[in-house]
Amino acid sequence: MLKVGIIGASGYTGVELARILSTHPEVELTVATSRQYAGKPLAEVFPSLRKRVDLVCENLGPEELVDRADFFFAAVPHKTAMDLVPILLKAGKKVVDLSADFRIRDAAVYEEWYQPHSSIECIEEAVYGLPELYRDQVKNARLTANPGCYPTSIILGLAPLLREGLIDPAHLIIDSKSGTSGAGRSANVGTLFCEVTDGFRAYKVGGQHRHIPEIEQELTVLAGQPVTISFTPHLLPISRGILSTMYAPLSNEISATTETEIQELYESTYTDEPFVRVCPAGSFPATQHVRGSNCCDIGIKVDVRTGRIIIVSAIDNVAKGASGQAVQNMNLMNGFDETCALMGAPFFP
Amino acid sequence: MLKVGIIGASGYTGVELARILSTHPEVELTVATSRQYAGKPLAEVFPSLRKRVDLVCENLGPEELVDRADFFFAAVPHKTAMDLVPILLKAGKKVVDLSADFRIRDAAVYEEWYQPHSSIECIEEAVYGLPELYRDQVKNARLTANPGCYPTSIILGLAPLLREGLIDPAHLIIDSKSGTSGAGRSANVGTLFCEVTDGFRAYKVGGQHRHIPEIEQELTVLAGQPVTISFTPHLLPISRGILSTMYAPLSNEISATTETEIQELYESTYTDEPFVRVCPAGSFPATQHVRGSNCCDIGIKVDVRTGRIIIVSAIDNVAKGASGQAVQNMNLMNGFDETCALMGAPFFP
Amino acid sequence: MLKVGIIGASGYTGVELARILSTHPEVELTVATSRQYAGKPLAEVFPSLRKRVDLVCENLGPEELVDRADFFFAAVPHKTAMDLVPILLKAGKKVVDLSADFRIRDAAVYEEWYQPHSSIECIEEAVYGLPELYRDQVKNARLTANPGCYPTSIILGLAPLLREGLIDPAHLIIDSKSGTSGAGRSANVGTLFCEVTDGFRAYKVGGQHRHIPEIEQELTVLAGQPVTISFTPHLLPISRGILSTMYAPLSNEISATTETEIQELYESTYTDEPFVRVCPAGSFPATQHVRGSNCCDIGIKVDVRTGRIIIVSAIDNVAKGASGQAVQNMNLMNGFDETCALMGAPFFP
Amino acid sequence: MLKVGIIGASGYTGVELARILSTHPEVELTVATSRQYAGKPLAEVFPSLRKRVDLVCENLGPEELVDRADFFFAAVPHKTAMDLVPILLKAGKKVVDLSADFRIRDAAVYEEWYQPHSSIECIEEAVYGLPELYRDQVKNARLTANPGCYPTSIILGLAPLLREGLIDPAHLIIDSKSGTSGAGRSANVGTLFCEVTDGFRAYKVGGQHRHIPEIEQELTVLAGQPVTISFTPHLLPISRGILSTMYAPLSNEISATTETEIQELYESTYTDEPFVRVCPAGSFPATQHVRGSNCCDIGIKVDVRTGRIIIVSAIDNVAKGASGQAVQNMNLMNGFDETCALMGAPFFP
Repeated sequence: MLKVGIIGASGYTGVELARILSTHPEVELTVATSRQYAGKPLAEVFPSLRKRVDLVCENLGPEELVDRADFFFAAVPHKTAMDLVPILLKAGKKVVDLSADFRIRDAAVYEEWYQPHSSIECIEEAVYGLPELYRDQVKNARLTANPGCYPTSIILGLAPLLREGLIDPAHLIIDSKSGTSGAGRSANVGTLFCEVTDGFRAYKVGGQHRHIPEIEQELTVLAGQPVTISFTPHLLPISRGILSTMYAPLSNEISATTETEIQELYESTYTDEPFVRVCPAGSFPATQHVRGSNCCDIGIKVDVRTGRIIIVSAIDNVAKGASGQAVQNMNLMNGFDETCALMGAPFFP
Repeated sequence: MLKVGIIGASGYTGVELARILSTHPEVELTVATSRQYAGKPLAEVFPSLRKRVDLVCENLGPEELVDRADFFFAAVPHKTAMDLVPILLKAGKKVVDLSADFRIRDAAVYEEWYQPHSSIECIEEAVYGLPELYRDQVKNARLTANPGCYPTSIILGLAPLLREGLIDPAHLIIDSKSGTSGAGRSANVGTLFCEVTDGFRAYKVGGQHRHIPEIEQELTVLAGQPVTISFTPHLLPISRGILSTMYAPLSNEISATTETEIQELYESTYTDEPFVRVCPAGSFPATQHVRGSNCCDIGIKVDVRTGRIIIVSAIDNVAKGASGQAVQNMNLMNGFDETCALMGAPFFP
Repeated sequence: MLKVGIIGASGYTGVELARILSTHPEVELTVATSRQYAGKPLAEVFPSLRKRVDLVCENLGPEELVDRADFFFAAVPHKTAMDLVPILLKAGKKVVDLSADFRIRDAAVYEEWYQPHSSIECIEEAVYGLPELYRDQVKNARLTANPGCYPTSIILGLAPLLREGLIDPAHLIIDSKSGTSGAGRSANVGTLFCEVTDGFRAYKVGGQHRHIPEIEQELTVLAGQPVTISFTPHLLPISRGILSTMYAPLSNEISATTETEIQELYESTYTDEPFVRVCPAGSFPATQHVRGSNCCDIGIKVDVRTGRIIIVSAIDNVAKGASGQAVQNMNLMNGFDETCALMGAPFFP
Repeated sequence: MLKVGIIGASGYTGVELARILSTHPEVELTVATSRQYAGKPLAEVFPSLRKRVDLVCENLGPEELVDRADFFFAAVPHKTAMDLVPILLKAGKKVVDLSADFRIRDAAVYEEWYQPHSSIECIEEAVYGLPELYRDQVKNARLTANPGCYPTSIILGLAPLLREGLIDPAHLIIDSKSGTSGAGRSANVGTLFCEVTDGFRAYKVGGQHRHIPEIEQELTVLAGQPVTISFTPHLLPISRGILSTMYAPLSNEISATTETEIQELYESTYTDEPFVRVCPAGSFPATQHVRGSNCCDIGIKVDVRTGRIIIVSAIDNVAKGASGQAVQNMNLMNGFDETCALMGAPFFP
């Protein structure tokens, strides 16, 4: 049994990690940290975990942590992570970091969008933990940088087209919508129930969201040329779920078979992927059909009127967009079956 | 007192018309038709109207209707409307038609997207009832074609830019999200609570939605050149509200003052409009801030990274997107104060 | 025009007061206070008020306030109100107080459930502002204690039965469910969107909620004998709305006509009340049918199997349960039409 | 591997059965029937099941069914079940029936609340499938009558008190609230999104709901004397979840230790039950904390003011209230581990 710790267990990614790990046959959850709830059973912070997770939150520094587990999920905010992770690595532990701190390969770009970086050597070691793109590297990684939620939905949605050069990467427009759990669990007027329910809004409009450099980094790799995107996130009155609607001009003239060919490209690309599901031609994903699961659903449509293709992808931002993908990475890093504890079908209704 | 009838009172636009008219000082609601609920008090179909609207639903043909009121709202499906409206007009009545039947000026375009049109002469007479663009024509109209919900949000959002030639109309991308009331009140698995709640999806992806020709018609007039759009509608888990996120390349090089100038353009364009509200620079609309009102809120942002402008607009699809705008048109057509019965502030929370 | 001030304008009752007053023809809103948002336009705190309410929040003490208006709504927390209100009264102003501070006539009872009371003389002067019970007293009041939201729904629901002695007041069970706006607008993990949505819970179970003494006080008056209730509040995943389900044993043997007689009693009791609507026999209220309105809907049913009557009542907790009723009281206290600015039908859907 | 069939797979209990069984290691799903969707992959009817359940819906009569599996879940409406189940039993199959047809032991009572019963001999054979009460009988059953959703939440909540004679069964009041999935998946105006969301209502008020005889049957067994209840169901704007609030007078005088003793009684009663979780003293269940799981959470509180105890219980109506419990019964009937495929923690948020 692998001894596993969750650092920062009292947020939504923390409780989701605990939920998934509670049925994982190869893993024992041995420590969960929370400054705010230290001394409280995790199942009191999250009554959903009652009789399923039996662990008391502790307020521990990294040095105290290292003896408590062999593998760690760092579910702390960016900036905190970059101080913590090197200590864990130095102690010989493996880590999946759920923050943004090790996702951006170019430290200068990171520092432009975030703040100064204090452990640049770890950036170099980190693997970007999107298994569908970097499976082999993840298997050998000591440190996996778990992708952001928006980036996961977008990169999986665009990869086949960019790799094949089928779209013009100069005119990508990405309109994403996220459930409110993405905003975290801190008390905040803007995410109160009455402010969010029965409503919908855009935020960080016009090239401001910090996931942009992460998305552009990976799309650039896929396209083999620099990619700049227009990206607008929105806040949905749901807890879990991201749906991204992506618009791109097709590189070639559209023919009668274009759509079928692209549909087949997606199906063949993802046929062996356990967590990516391509919607049948003419149908499209919905967040309620991936809810509570590690799935990413993708649908495509060629708009012959405008020469564009529209790609729609959906994930559960807490699962494939965070904790589910983190466990997928843990599985790979430890030689477990990649799908272990993750094959539950989405909850519907 | 103007005697007013609602034809097709048992849908969501019907109940909203009844709600608004119930406090209108110049109007008496004299007849409400519904095939399905004939004989039932409208306040039994919609208990919200109890003690506020005292009218029994009737199943009446157009000939029986004409003597019952002087002004009619046709809140019936397209196709039904085109048979009904000419009879009302011939009898000397004025009409606001909430269907799509008289919105498209080019009958051939209508017939391409809908079905054969049986009263083309009425198309010619009809005024497109977006008062912010066609106020004077509406004042003199006998027949007003009440705009679609998506078109209202989009046209008001883009008008200032297109009129001034500030954006390239060849690359417009419009990503719209609508509340479920837009799907109407007929029993349907797809709009059951459990299918919609806690979820989000795209539909009619890739140039398929019938509001496209209506939107392109009006954007073309504004731009003074043909406009083709990419338009993707989505279904929000809310009752009321549409938010449209619009992307367009700016025609000119962006300077340090571009955003301020455009912000001022919007503010001056809409300063005297009682129902269009421009968000302060850097802030954006939310459907919950227009809920239950006839307001259209608009925010803009220049994305200097990509040379695009993003425009976000929000309306209540049942109000400014349908029944509220219909009453606004009725006010204009009858010489009432345009804002009569419509100045209620949105209800929040 | 009556000059009106809102003290504590940045909560949900504050914005609702501003919304209602914005269309009130006899009233001018002259001052709105908020410590937290001082200097900010109220329409920036609540964008729903944009172009409808033009007032900047101010941080003013009671002495500075008195010259700014002739009539005040105190929408501040209990305890704060008891210090503020005497100063306003002393300056000759009239006040509707929305807190609990002047609702309980017996100061000892207040102090048992709340804390020491510092202006007991004002308790004596205050009128309990439920117009359906105390209309004449409210007309002459300088200080009206606006009822709590739960109490409003419960007292209106039980009044006819208690007054006529038709139920046994010793076995009243009241199960109430409230929308989340009742919890206010302060940042709080428990009322975050993700904690409330798609869920339901009881709170303050077992005789703990502070509305109990207020409810019992008024039910005791109606019954003419001491009434003790079992009261359990619950939190609904909606913004606005309270529904109370009340169970009482009937005093007399049930006959074939009992239900009809009681139905008629309710109808006759409330026939002239503009804001109380009795549901037709066999039908029951729903919060969505009173949403955004000052209405209280009531339905009744005799359960012949158990000898009990079940009464169900629904209000919008922000409107009839707070700000709507406060305006109703203001209307009465100033000789305006009681229904002025309050006759809007509920918003549905 | 046990070959399992789902009869009536296109409803919400059907998709939940398929979801749970898709990860069950002892079971192979071999047939799924649906008249409406015959010929369609189940994963097209419910895209949540894509890549997880690979089965095409078939329209099969009972005779055609018997060779296709060894164990059946009958997820069809009552009345249909009573014709189907005897044929399956005669063919030597075991069955969990999710309808009401075999829950009521007294056929006369069944016929009073439902309609004539055509297979009374099966009633006699059927075991009431609440494992916490009838575990041993279920193990030996050929036919298990899966309990109703409301009854499950209520019986588990009251069992300890009734068995010990601690409450007076003559004055039980049960106020229950259910998510909308309980209303099923048929197209229906009353359960459209816009009719349910942002709202709350009671239904079947006053002793009318058909779960009453089932509840009273089991409470009577527990109490050892006839029990009659007041039961009011309500419709919550959530998909999944039932919360029941139950009120009962305590039989004995309340002392300082009463609450603690009863708390301990609940804890000891349910300590070994994997799916019943007693909330710590002073805390109460919430539907969002059992969502998607087979758990039943229970909290209790003594109201010293009124001499009553309040018991609050919560389940997921689709899981412990239907399909989860059905799989629990299947596990028992086949000698599998009772918790197999059911130990997933609730998903929150």
